[in-house]
Amino acid sequence: MQIDEIFEADKRLKKKKRTTPLLNSPFLDEIADKQIFIKAECLQHTGSFKFRGAYSAISSIPIEKRKKGVIAYSSGNHAQGVAFAAKIHKIPATIVMPQDAPEIKINNTKDLGAEVILYDRLSESREEIGQKISQEKFLSLIPPYDHNDVIAGQGTIGLEIARQAEQIGIRKADVLVCCGGGGLTSGIAVALSNFTPNFVTRPVEPEGFDDVVRSLEIGERQTNEKISGGLCDAIITPTPGKLTFPLMKKYCGGGIVVTDEQVMKAIALAFTRLRIVIEPGGAVALAAALFHSKKCDNETIIAVVSGGNIDPDIFKKALETI
Amino acid sequence: MQIDEIFEADKRLKKKKRTTPLLNSPFLDEIADKQIFIKAECLQHTGSFKFRGAYSAISSIPIEKRKKGVIAYSSGNHAQGVAFAAKIHKIPATIVMPQDAPEIKINNTKDLGAEVILYDRLSESREEIGQKISQEKFLSLIPPYDHNDVIAGQGTIGLEIARQAEQIGIRKADVLVCCGGGGLTSGIAVALSNFTPNFVTRPVEPEGFDDVVRSLEIGERQTNEKISGGLCDAIITPTPGKLTFPLMKKYCGGGIVVTDEQVMKAIALAFTRLRIVIEPGGAVALAAALFHSKKCDNETIIAVVSGGNIDPDIFKKALETI
Repeated sequence: MQIDEIFEADKRLKKKKRTTPLLNSPFLDEIADKQIFIKAECLQHTGSFKFRGAYSAISSIPIEKRKKGVIAYSSGNHAQGVAFAAKIHKIPATIVMPQDAPEIKINNTKDLGAEVILYDRLSESREEIGQKISQEKFLSLIPPYDHNDVIAGQGTIGLEIARQAEQIGIRKADVLVCCGGGGLTSGIAVALSNFTPNFVTRPVEPEGFDDVVRSLEIGERQTNEKISGGLCDAIITPTPGKLTFPLMKKYCGGGIVVTDEQVMKAIALAFTRLRIVIEPGGAVALAAALFHSKKCDNETIIAVVSGGNIDPDIFKKALETI
Repeated sequence: MQIDEIFEADKRLKKKKRTTPLLNSPFLDEIADKQIFIKAECLQHTGSFKFRGAYSAISSIPIEKRKKGVIAYSSGNHAQGVAFAAKIHKIPATIVMPQDAPEIKINNTKDLGAEVILYDRLSESREEIGQKISQEKFLSLIPPYDHNDVIAGQGTIGLEIARQAEQIGIRKADVLVCCGGGGLTSGIAVALSNFTPNFVTRPVEPEGFDDVVRSLEIGERQTNEKISGGLCDAIITPTPGKLTFPLMKKYCGGGIVVTDEQVMKAIALAFTRLRIVIEPGGAVALAAALFHSKKCDNETIIAVVSGGNIDPDIFKKALETI
């Protein structure tokens, strides 16, 4: 995985992705007692960063193969990203989703024109289902994170952060990233490492699902005890990716773990102070910036808010914390 | 009011304002049966467009006079805009606010360092209170809309819309604007009229508070029967401004009126489809784009979402409509 691959993905995504804004609020700075900026990737097409990786990967497939269609397995955001990227390319998409994914994500994926196949997280393997259908129907598999073109697509966020930080005069910062399999985190870390050694990329995970944070501490890939059931459904993965882990090991600083309570408060503060809607899995980095700012080296923190597809009932519960 | 004043305001606001994104969603296009873009000014500093006009006006005051401080009267968003713009200029701000303004807006204004004076909307005149204190303490009055520098500041949104529309290839559009006193609407209309005759700016108001829409129909300033009590508190004004009305008469197309029910649905759809938080007064233009698209001349509609400071309880009610 080279920086050039991120530059290439950035070219393919030009005029397709949204350049999402870097937001801030004096009220949030006060809570963290540091300067906080929020990269609002919940405002990306389909409501998460996943569109970038999906578009990057699909646009890399040779045309004749691409026409046959794509398949992906995902708890929701990657599903929508692939469905929308396929729609733009005018090719069919099949998405394998867990039965317990938020209803809104399943419905959105269908509404974006994809065929959805549901599976049971506890008894079935999404990888096996995905590969079986892929082979039967000659579909190109777009993995959620362990794929160079996907990582490169997510890395375009790092390029935007570098440009936007320069514009507002930020020279040193901790960049906190919501971390599942590590596609977003490793992509951003590779992109930023190219520009300046003064940006420290750190993965952030929810308590109980901190496989990446522990893996970085120990230096080898660790596994979570539970593989479902957390609040932060979008970033629950069993273990760091085979491709993403070496990249994170090389380019990232130590990770941060947050509680579900901190996640719910971060969602509420994003509502009152930033006027953006964020989902639990997309809020862990902001929660870390607000409530664990002392774990960061720099006085400026950039938190990547990775998604905003949240069930209304969970959002209402978050608002109760105000 | 000349276009040059908007260009001057744009220079003063450079690196101070946020260039807010133009968002869209295939799901919203489907509802409207037209192509809809949303200018998300709820993502501006302090959560509404009002920061632009406030900063534009304060930065125009001669330095010696400016140092004595500013005063403003406002139902909330102008209050926060003036308080934050004064904070950046490091000068004191006094804000006269109605007792029935949303608590979050009163608290935010105080937290931004302003002194807040409350008044009763039904028995007292905010203009009189504002002018009295202004004279006693030598404070510069920053009116909410009827002031050239304020209108010019809001007009910078029109410049951004023209640039952003060009970038994505939009040549013709109806631009729908949430309208209270008309500062935002007239500023945008003047700015857009300079670029192309193919953009039609239209004010949008809530049922029962449609003074501007009726005034444009009749050709003379009309007054609302009620002066408080509506859902869309941010844009409830008794009559169009003295300065803003002639501008709207010259540069605007006919207005559109929406119901409170449509406003609540627009808030919910902005939550699920755009992942932004919008307040009732800031949602009327989106409601018009979604549910009155046939009243627009063009196949593309740009709706300006003007603010996102909403009480959590009202937001929760809006989510019930999903």
